Amino acid sequence: MKRGCAYGTHRVLEPLGVLPQAAYKLDNQPAIFSNEICIDVNLLTISATAFAQLKKRTHGEPTRIAEEIMHITRERGKFQCPQTGAGGMLTGVVEKIGPDLAGKVELKEGDPVATLVSLSLTPLYLEEVREIFRETDQVRVKGKAILFASGIYTRLPADIPERVSVAVMDVAGAPAWTAKYVKAGDYVVVIGAGKAGLLCLHEAKKRAGVTGKVIAIDPSARQCERITAMELADIVIQADATQPVAVLEQLRAATGGRLADFVVNTVNVAGTEMASILVCRDHGCVLFFSMSTDFAKAALGCEGVGKVVTMLIGSGYTEGHAEITYQILQENPKLKEYFLEVYQ
Amino acid sequence: MKRGCAYGTHRVLEPLGVLPQAAYKLDNQPAIFSNEICIDVNLLTISATAFAQLKKRTHGEPTRIAEEIMHITRERGKFQCPQTGAGGMLTGVVEKIGPDLAGKVELKEGDPVATLVSLSLTPLYLEEVREIFRETDQVRVKGKAILFASGIYTRLPADIPERVSVAVMDVAGAPAWTAKYVKAGDYVVVIGAGKAGLLCLHEAKKRAGVTGKVIAIDPSARQCERITAMELADIVIQADATQPVAVLEQLRAATGGRLADFVVNTVNVAGTEMASILVCRDHGCVLFFSMSTDFAKAALGCEGVGKVVTMLIGSGYTEGHAEITYQILQENPKLKEYFLEVYQ
Repeated sequence: MKRGCAYGTHRVLEPLGVLPQAAYKLDNQPAIFSNEICIDVNLLTISATAFAQLKKRTHGEPTRIAEEIMHITRERGKFQCPQTGAGGMLTGVVEKIGPDLAGKVELKEGDPVATLVSLSLTPLYLEEVREIFRETDQVRVKGKAILFASGIYTRLPADIPERVSVAVMDVAGAPAWTAKYVKAGDYVVVIGAGKAGLLCLHEAKKRAGVTGKVIAIDPSARQCERITAMELADIVIQADATQPVAVLEQLRAATGGRLADFVVNTVNVAGTEMASILVCRDHGCVLFFSMSTDFAKAALGCEGVGKVVTMLIGSGYTEGHAEITYQILQENPKLKEYFLEVYQ
Repeated sequence: MKRGCAYGTHRVLEPLGVLPQAAYKLDNQPAIFSNEICIDVNLLTISATAFAQLKKRTHGEPTRIAEEIMHITRERGKFQCPQTGAGGMLTGVVEKIGPDLAGKVELKEGDPVATLVSLSLTPLYLEEVREIFRETDQVRVKGKAILFASGIYTRLPADIPERVSVAVMDVAGAPAWTAKYVKAGDYVVVIGAGKAGLLCLHEAKKRAGVTGKVIAIDPSARQCERITAMELADIVIQADATQPVAVLEQLRAATGGRLADFVVNTVNVAGTEMASILVCRDHGCVLFFSMSTDFAKAALGCEGVGKVVTMLIGSGYTEGHAEITYQILQENPKLKEYFLEVYQ
């Protein structure tokens, strides 16, 4: 049995010399190298950005979405949105652990597992697409995936249903980075109240504490009501973050002109960079966790308004991100109930 | 005389409601509002990304480049690259200061000045393009520009020629952020040895000190020789940063496997995100200062290799960036000489 590269370059078919993420095509055969793990895949959770593209190109018809996923995966040996490069994640059961990893990883064959690296770099072989859950961007499948030695994963907890577990793990980086940055007394703005946003709100409120203030911004009246009902924010503002000047005015009013120390952008909509920057005070920090973020718009936009703000590219991973996120569901029964309702 | 919005929204013609940077078209008439400054423009320094596009679309012919700049500016009321959104900066002489700003800004009419906000949000009226300096991405023009109340600028120093001043101011954010992040003993990698990279190298070496190590990476043999001759780095590696795996191997060898605490990417070439991330050690920091950076590639790529790295979106502005950058030229006669040679 041959040993592969820890980053998976041995699976890259074209163009040669790049990492799996940047590759157009990967070798997706299920036979493992000595430092790989093979997973029997049950469920894909497509990233919101990629699923929006799938729906757009198929008019939302489930059979056409299924065909499109099969087509992309056959063509490329992985699932990666051709338009945006986004992927998603997967869950399944550990089928085989390569001999070089056995005893070194906290997994054994038969364990239920979620991979925490993007589908956009994961060799994936699909036999079939069985069911599309359009409301949750999830897809029930039968197939095999390969996890490289550098790949990250989490064992699925016994007390949370698989689809819920996966839904929250997909965005676990957002609350984990929020946990690292928010300090007592901070004013925190969370833009967008999808699953990432809701988890960030809980974590921000915990960290900012009684002397801080947590402000949620979302365009949907229904989602704003939910935040209020779940008591996830001190202030809830129904607003469209693509309108930076209007959002700034509302934030000024809500904070008495102080603005935010920390801003998390979790909106999968283009053009929300400037609202994120404008509501942040000088020497504050903006975490861009949305794949719709445009690097140049953020960089030039921040310079353009002469603000001194630390702007972070939110990676989906940081240490303990799975533990931090599962802990939120333990701590917040209302939020857990909401996730159970939406994603089960 | 009417008062405008500090961010310049009163100059936006289409689409209404956005900030000037995001606008397709600005009102570029030279008559000022009460909180604006009008500048008699001499020189545009086009951003490297935008100038590369201009050269590509005109086969590098000066008259066609001039026509293209006139066309874009007439069409949009500002100079902004239609393909990439990038701009540049300008210098000139203060022609008029609105009554609301008089006495509140450190400028008087007649002062030589460089605007430090991007051309992509600056109302610009051009009478003519007089000369193209293809080697330095600069353009001698006759025209008028408007600076908003939130706009940043610097008076041009008397001891540095205008074109040199502008060339370094255009990238002043890079060495200034480097100054803020690099600590004594750090291993620093600077990717790309254009003007931003060279300034970062000097600043990194000063901050990392005798216990640190500064490593320069550039694909050009000539530029690598220059770095060596100017003693700007402890280690110079001639390598192509679009090849992440190869670059990682060279960095491992150069640092005895330790990798870098701080990485600055200044390369205006697509596909260098992964090399930047891979050469950074866990808990290190990568500053992306290149407009060619792809947000999703950085975010998903970092997650994909399971690294815990703080990734910063490099804004062109932070406090004191002009002072920090002029100071580099004072401290480093060889570097000053190089800039005088190339940009004068």
